[in-house]
Amino acid sequence: MTGLAKSWVASANRVGCEFPIQNLPYGVFSTDGTARRCGVAIGEMILDLAACEDSGVLETGGAFAQPQLNDFMALGRASWDHTRSLLTELLAEGGDTRLPLVPMTAARLHLPIKVSEFTDFYASRHHAFNVGAMFRGAANALPAQWTHMPIGYNGRASSVVVSGTPIRRPMGQILGDHGPEWSPSRRLDLELELGAIIGADSAMGERVDVERAEQMIFGYALLNDWSARDIQTWEYQPLGPFQSKAFATTISPWIVTQAALEPFRCPGAPRSNPLLPYLHEARPGFYDLTVGWRMNGQDMAQTNYAQMYYSSAQQLAHHTGSGCPMRVGDLLGSGTISGPERNARGALLEMTENGQNPILVNGESRCFIQDGDEIDLFAHAQGDGYRIGFGPCAGRILPALP
Amino acid sequence: MTGLAKSWVASANRVGCEFPIQNLPYGVFSTDGTARRCGVAIGEMILDLAACEDSGVLETGGAFAQPQLNDFMALGRASWDHTRSLLTELLAEGGDTRLPLVPMTAARLHLPIKVSEFTDFYASRHHAFNVGAMFRGAANALPAQWTHMPIGYNGRASSVVVSGTPIRRPMGQILGDHGPEWSPSRRLDLELELGAIIGADSAMGERVDVERAEQMIFGYALLNDWSARDIQTWEYQPLGPFQSKAFATTISPWIVTQAALEPFRCPGAPRSNPLLPYLHEARPGFYDLTVGWRMNGQDMAQTNYAQMYYSSAQQLAHHTGSGCPMRVGDLLGSGTISGPERNARGALLEMTENGQNPILVNGESRCFIQDGDEIDLFAHAQGDGYRIGFGPCAGRILPALP
Repeated sequence: MTGLAKSWVASANRVGCEFPIQNLPYGVFSTDGTARRCGVAIGEMILDLAACEDSGVLETGGAFAQPQLNDFMALGRASWDHTRSLLTELLAEGGDTRLPLVPMTAARLHLPIKVSEFTDFYASRHHAFNVGAMFRGAANALPAQWTHMPIGYNGRASSVVVSGTPIRRPMGQILGDHGPEWSPSRRLDLELELGAIIGADSAMGERVDVERAEQMIFGYALLNDWSARDIQTWEYQPLGPFQSKAFATTISPWIVTQAALEPFRCPGAPRSNPLLPYLHEARPGFYDLTVGWRMNGQDMAQTNYAQMYYSSAQQLAHHTGSGCPMRVGDLLGSGTISGPERNARGALLEMTENGQNPILVNGESRCFIQDGDEIDLFAHAQGDGYRIGFGPCAGRILPALP
Repeated sequence: MTGLAKSWVASANRVGCEFPIQNLPYGVFSTDGTARRCGVAIGEMILDLAACEDSGVLETGGAFAQPQLNDFMALGRASWDHTRSLLTELLAEGGDTRLPLVPMTAARLHLPIKVSEFTDFYASRHHAFNVGAMFRGAANALPAQWTHMPIGYNGRASSVVVSGTPIRRPMGQILGDHGPEWSPSRRLDLELELGAIIGADSAMGERVDVERAEQMIFGYALLNDWSARDIQTWEYQPLGPFQSKAFATTISPWIVTQAALEPFRCPGAPRSNPLLPYLHEARPGFYDLTVGWRMNGQDMAQTNYAQMYYSSAQQLAHHTGSGCPMRVGDLLGSGTISGPERNARGALLEMTENGQNPILVNGESRCFIQDGDEIDLFAHAQGDGYRIGFGPCAGRILPALP
């Protein structure tokens, strides 16, 4: 496909549109009084894939009539590829204009997958260094194993929500001046991440190499790993973050497929030392993808996913290294994406240097997120005459319920 | 019910039987060529609960015809209580001797629940002190927040297996004399735990107090949180254990209900300081439950669940404190149960003092688990003329696949 391919859906061809025919991201939607079903974004419209199954245009056996994409993902990569080819043909200029389209303005978007388990990583060197330096000093900033393995931890799947869901400020145990207290978090933060969505199972005891790991990745969503830094500081030794991250994780409604990102493949950050063979990549597993975040509509930071040190495929290979089985619907957070400059940092903790140097947001001072603030993430890959976007990944903070 | 209540199933009345009529634990079983379904253990038999539904003896709407107990748990506590009363009546002397019983010897036992998510805690003071002293010295052994909150981390649900499943020794990244290497774990360990099974949902943003948390617990299983100590040492800072525990967790096939354990309720370990109100218990949430483990058939250690500092209800209340939603089928590991003496320790790491002081097992020296070794856990509560047991929680180690 050339960069200039166009769709008969006019809004898909507009300059700056996030959902041109080169993208075709999957999501789950409903309209008033109808059931949740799967769709593909094209311009300002959603192609109703369940209706396409009903009319025989797609032969995916009812997988798209489900309230999440897991059944379709479970059909496997051959089906992903075939469906993408078919949808590209149908939606291209000269394709079938009778297809069932729903305007985005008439649809409600839902969590696109049933999240089996959520694992979060720590793969931006700038982020790991900046945060480590705050807590342990610059000399000990980067953990000893950081350049040798993708450090990760298991997160909580039950609190993954779709963009637009209001986020309740968490209560938690915090170390105050007079000892531990039960308090609303006073240091609420975001983390700008990309989430890889796993579309295939692996068996218990089976190790997956990086090449096959990449084949297991269905696509990517934007991911905000909301974090309560004061709860985190008090709880995290020695077993890692727990309630500080358990209250909510927001993902974008659209899953951009690996196929759509393929033209943007590029190397990641330079390596300090060779990796052990089980982490070797035959080809670079990163994407030239501009990512950033806004607070209350103001641009705060922008960087690039190619800043990362470990790709999702390397993270997945490491994850299965012990024999840990993966399942369709597993979600792997990339870790906070930060560049070296202050305006390239993917968390307030870094940007305000642990709350020491406030930033200005629409003229107001901020160290951390206040009630009523809205954070939204964005990402796009710029092609030749088109742009691949992810849609919104937004959440507004509600006051704590003490 | 008095301690002397008897069943018409003769084997349930034998001295030392783990499954007298006072127990009635739930599990999932199949016989040759039949589907998985739910059952209750009574003596050396399993009462086929799906068949009881078919014949109208139980009115649980097909919940027991499922391959896991989640549907039954989701019916709620009133249904749990009613079903227990009915089963007690049916199986008591003078009850209905035409009930569909299957001999345990003819049945295969399966994972009794679909594990939604697995969270593991760190609630034995002896264990936390012993392990902390090894890594940080006695003065810094107990983390500062340990006596104030139940420390926990999210584990991996996909690798929870039922007793009897062989366990493959994990490969992993380990820090060797010449830097990181990819190796089979050389320090494979067990952790003796009790697993609380959550039988009710909580909503996102909703906090659950200790009293209601207790009402959400369906029952308990034995749990072995297999751990690769060398992988753990190298990976765990700063985000906690990950692949060192992701390869396998074994649970017993029988879930002993909270109702069966009620007569054994007792206080836990003495407290060093008052807890914050959100962790207050109106009544003690521990049980006088002897727990221990064997290696290759030899008794290695024995202690009591009442050694613990935080109850499962306190752990669950803390878990929801941030607003993290819980789901039917969530599994909460108690943390390793250790007493003060060497022969009361629930992990080899503690018992051999970090591999420095080997133990003798059937005349052979051991610091950690070798290929071919079998670990099995046990637990029982001793009543007046009867004993409540959990059945086996065993696993044998297979060699790594390099």
